[in-house]
Amino acid sequence: MKILVAGAGAMGSRFGYMLQKSGNDVLLVDTWKEHVEKIRKDGLSVTQDGQYLGQFNIPIAYPEEVEGTFDFIILFTKSMQLDSMLQSIKKVITKDTYILCLLNGLGHDKVLVNYLDKKHIFLGATRFSAGLNGPGNVIGHGSGLIELMLLEDSDDKKKNEIIEVLNQAELFSELSKKVFSSIWHKVSLNCVINTMTTLIDTNIGGYGDFSDHDKITQLILDEIQAVAIKEGIDYDRNYVETIITNLFTGNKRNHYPSLYQDMKNKRLTEIDYLNGAIADLGRKNGIKTPVCELITYLIHAKEFIQSNK
Amino acid sequence: MKILVAGAGAMGSRFGYMLQKSGNDVLLVDTWKEHVEKIRKDGLSVTQDGQYLGQFNIPIAYPEEVEGTFDFIILFTKSMQLDSMLQSIKKVITKDTYILCLLNGLGHDKVLVNYLDKKHIFLGATRFSAGLNGPGNVIGHGSGLIELMLLEDSDDKKKNEIIEVLNQAELFSELSKKVFSSIWHKVSLNCVINTMTTLIDTNIGGYGDFSDHDKITQLILDEIQAVAIKEGIDYDRNYVETIITNLFTGNKRNHYPSLYQDMKNKRLTEIDYLNGAIADLGRKNGIKTPVCELITYLIHAKEFIQSNK
Repeated sequence: MKILVAGAGAMGSRFGYMLQKSGNDVLLVDTWKEHVEKIRKDGLSVTQDGQYLGQFNIPIAYPEEVEGTFDFIILFTKSMQLDSMLQSIKKVITKDTYILCLLNGLGHDKVLVNYLDKKHIFLGATRFSAGLNGPGNVIGHGSGLIELMLLEDSDDKKKNEIIEVLNQAELFSELSKKVFSSIWHKVSLNCVINTMTTLIDTNIGGYGDFSDHDKITQLILDEIQAVAIKEGIDYDRNYVETIITNLFTGNKRNHYPSLYQDMKNKRLTEIDYLNGAIADLGRKNGIKTPVCELITYLIHAKEFIQSNK
Repeated sequence: MKILVAGAGAMGSRFGYMLQKSGNDVLLVDTWKEHVEKIRKDGLSVTQDGQYLGQFNIPIAYPEEVEGTFDFIILFTKSMQLDSMLQSIKKVITKDTYILCLLNGLGHDKVLVNYLDKKHIFLGATRFSAGLNGPGNVIGHGSGLIELMLLEDSDDKKKNEIIEVLNQAELFSELSKKVFSSIWHKVSLNCVINTMTTLIDTNIGGYGDFSDHDKITQLILDEIQAVAIKEGIDYDRNYVETIITNLFTGNKRNHYPSLYQDMKNKRLTEIDYLNGAIADLGRKNGIKTPVCELITYLIHAKEFIQSNK
């Protein structure tokens, strides 16, 4: 299958490598110059679970260079870059193209519907994870699962072919009616962990060691749950609390979440698609979300003070 | 008049110097060893409005060394040290002693009434300010005003003598029925400026330059105002907003508030007497204060991560 991976950071690189390895015709796309040039020169360096697997020659292009047609496009940009990426590659999106969006955060479906038919838009949530150890150097940890759904279901058999391609690449995927729940559960985790580690300046274990961490968590989840219910989401608060608590004793204790890393590296963060999105939906639904509002402003204020770009 | 200044940091040192200069028998009290020993050895170095005034020989003692009786005790400890200071010096508090408490924050009156009669407790709010440039080195800026009241009024003429003594020392003081309002107005300012500069890691001007600073301010003041009204305080929100706005264009732009400095120097902060006190009073009165709660937890979490003491 001809596959475009639009946004070839840690997750995009890992997915691109796995899909090429299982026999697909993969093109990565990214805007980060050092990363693109490194992969062009030396290939993509892949490490999985601590084991170096080698340098792999994978085609990679800047968005404006992309040509041709693709059966399937996987989107792995930063949230705020989704629209400009779609603008850049819309020339290669045909009526037969399927897109899978696995971005963190809320509201991406509202962007996607401007570019193609709901019947060709997969929205998903994944438990795969990956990191970058510098340009061209991807590190995968463990395996994962992808839950996905079409924004509007169809009988098109290509839908199943795409899921089959993902599974053959060991990107274990299954259709689910609970994708929105999964997205909201993951957003909840990020609205707590990513923001608090950033504001307190610590890793996940540090936040978990603070005796009143659960009181902070409750203040945030109170608002998210209220908005989720109003939005018709099947929201399982106990599940969210459990995955948060598990982080504090697991091997992610030493991890600094992506938002923390963005702040540390003076990049703009995805806060508007996390607590900021909750606050927006709160306003829309007449639900007060002062805690999510404050967190959003605090993160933006830190970006401003540091002149993040 | 025989005066004890209990807590001889920046403000206590400035007040002690001014009261001695105008002819009173002043004893400073403090627990900070370097500061006490420096003043004992070289006297108190005083700078006022950029002009060095000299080294002044002022008696200073550790709390456990204090003996004798005092007409008047001025309290200038950190909020969390008030009770232990009173414990240490209670042996010199007689039925004739008056106390003036000018600490920032809320709730100090509830501590004071455990040590002496309400008729002898002045509660006040001051616009004087001062800084320390290392041990034994106090820096005063401008002049100020002190509004004060007795927790329970009396006809005792000593009340007026004390106010006269303060005024002779140019610590301009007047009895006021609006002391609680003034305290709440000052607390409001500190609940916004001291906390936000600390969490965002900037000075007052930096916070003021952030385009959405006013939205943060409104989230915090919404809660303080609701609690203040329920507590029967004559609360002037417009006044608070004006003094906050004025800070952003005034000569305090480069200033880092005391809470910021405490955090930077790995000391415990007064957050429990600011946003933490608002949250406590909110709980007592059945008013939701999630924003003040979150801010209190965030500051405590930062103290914890940094092992502040």
